[in-house]
Amino acid sequence: MARNIQSLERAAAMLRLLAGGERRLGLSDIASTLGLAKGTAHGILRTLQAEGFVEQEPASGRYQLGAELLRLGNSYLDVHELRARALVWTDDLARSSGEAVYLGVLHQQGVLIVHHVFRPDDSRQVLEVGAMHPLHSTALGKVLCAFDPVAHSEVLECERGPLTGRTVTEPTAFEEALDLTRARGWASDQEETWEGVASLAAPIHDRRRMPVGAVGVTGPVERLCPDGTLRTELVTAVRDCARAVSRDLGAGRF
Amino acid sequence: MARNIQSLERAAAMLRLLAGGERRLGLSDIASTLGLAKGTAHGILRTLQAEGFVEQEPASGRYQLGAELLRLGNSYLDVHELRARALVWTDDLARSSGEAVYLGVLHQQGVLIVHHVFRPDDSRQVLEVGAMHPLHSTALGKVLCAFDPVAHSEVLECERGPLTGRTVTEPTAFEEALDLTRARGWASDQEETWEGVASLAAPIHDRRRMPVGAVGVTGPVERLCPDGTLRTELVTAVRDCARAVSRDLGAGRF
Repeated sequence: MARNIQSLERAAAMLRLLAGGERRLGLSDIASTLGLAKGTAHGILRTLQAEGFVEQEPASGRYQLGAELLRLGNSYLDVHELRARALVWTDDLARSSGEAVYLGVLHQQGVLIVHHVFRPDDSRQVLEVGAMHPLHSTALGKVLCAFDPVAHSEVLECERGPLTGRTVTEPTAFEEALDLTRARGWASDQEETWEGVASLAAPIHDRRRMPVGAVGVTGPVERLCPDGTLRTELVTAVRDCARAVSRDLGAGRF
Repeated sequence: MARNIQSLERAAAMLRLLAGGERRLGLSDIASTLGLAKGTAHGILRTLQAEGFVEQEPASGRYQLGAELLRLGNSYLDVHELRARALVWTDDLARSSGEAVYLGVLHQQGVLIVHHVFRPDDSRQVLEVGAMHPLHSTALGKVLCAFDPVAHSEVLECERGPLTGRTVTEPTAFEEALDLTRARGWASDQEETWEGVASLAAPIHDRRRMPVGAVGVTGPVERLCPDGTLRTELVTAVRDCARAVSRDLGAGRF
């Protein structure tokens, strides 16, 4: 097996560094964080800047992520088959449920939101496309962990810290939640990720019956769980949506 | 001046190739398009795949852009000062105008949409964040060309082909449109980019009085230009929005 290309790996590490935490960093910080000589780091940054992957603040000289990443990220979405197949079904789900709809896929140790249909009302909402949600506490994440062995091994490797007082962190209880998800075919999150927010999600399968993503609704816990449990018609609507997208991807009916 | 790093430049060229045209390409196509030996191309692709920048379709073995680009593109937006300052003002503009609002910046030879507020109605709308719009025919693009010398030199270098029967392509007429934009402080596009669609935009300046972007509204030509010219109250609303964002960025009032 040939080795990967070191300068590319270092460039990717720089982009990850600029994507988290501080987000605007000087050359010295970048070099020392990644354990590189300043000259080496500068050569990589200069090339990344020439290609539009990083930008330099004129005043401070600090580096930040560049516009080319937004353009390429948008092109990624354009070619995303799952997303394309789900567009109409997720619109319908938002309309019928009156809640926001998320479509997520496993990426690294989290759920990457690849589509977000706003709750159909006039309130201000923040687009979550491109955001990472936790694997261990969200309904989307639990669905992925329950049905995708890769997601399951990723979640066991990452730190499953409490996000609210209701986050399930204890290993046995977490596995039981995944067993329940497999048994009933959907997962829930009642204030386990964000206070006051509930969600439920179901898995999407492709023609090889592989779990390729999850779709679900998210909203205030009072509206989704008026008497402490998720409304049955919401569960039905989410599962119908997931089945419809799966069929469009070529999954069999049975 | 030290040279840029060749493997990084090649990797960026691969990502650009996968972002345009076919979007799912085999190793041979990628290698031959970029004039690389197959082994060289494979080493770069393997590293890009390990870092999440490209993905390989299991069935065909063809490469496409990877999920990490979406995550990084979203992080780019998070750190975007212009976009952060514009969020509230563009929401207000969409509400008061009843039309979709775009915020754009110069990127390469086009306008990169960094924020899009949907038209406040229940119709289905496609998010344009991350999309590239033409510099020479859109209102956003004409504003950037009129006020930003870099945009102006970019647009003179690129092919300004007709997109509709009304696109201004003749050099003298194009420069006259930019002169008009500078003189009145805003630009219009009446079916010069898309049939049936009109838009108008105004420039945003930062504390150094540099043009850093443009903001505008877009909608059906019948609604924006009921009697053949843009409604005056829309022009006022767009210019007010651009001024408010500029002030938030530290531009002086005068």
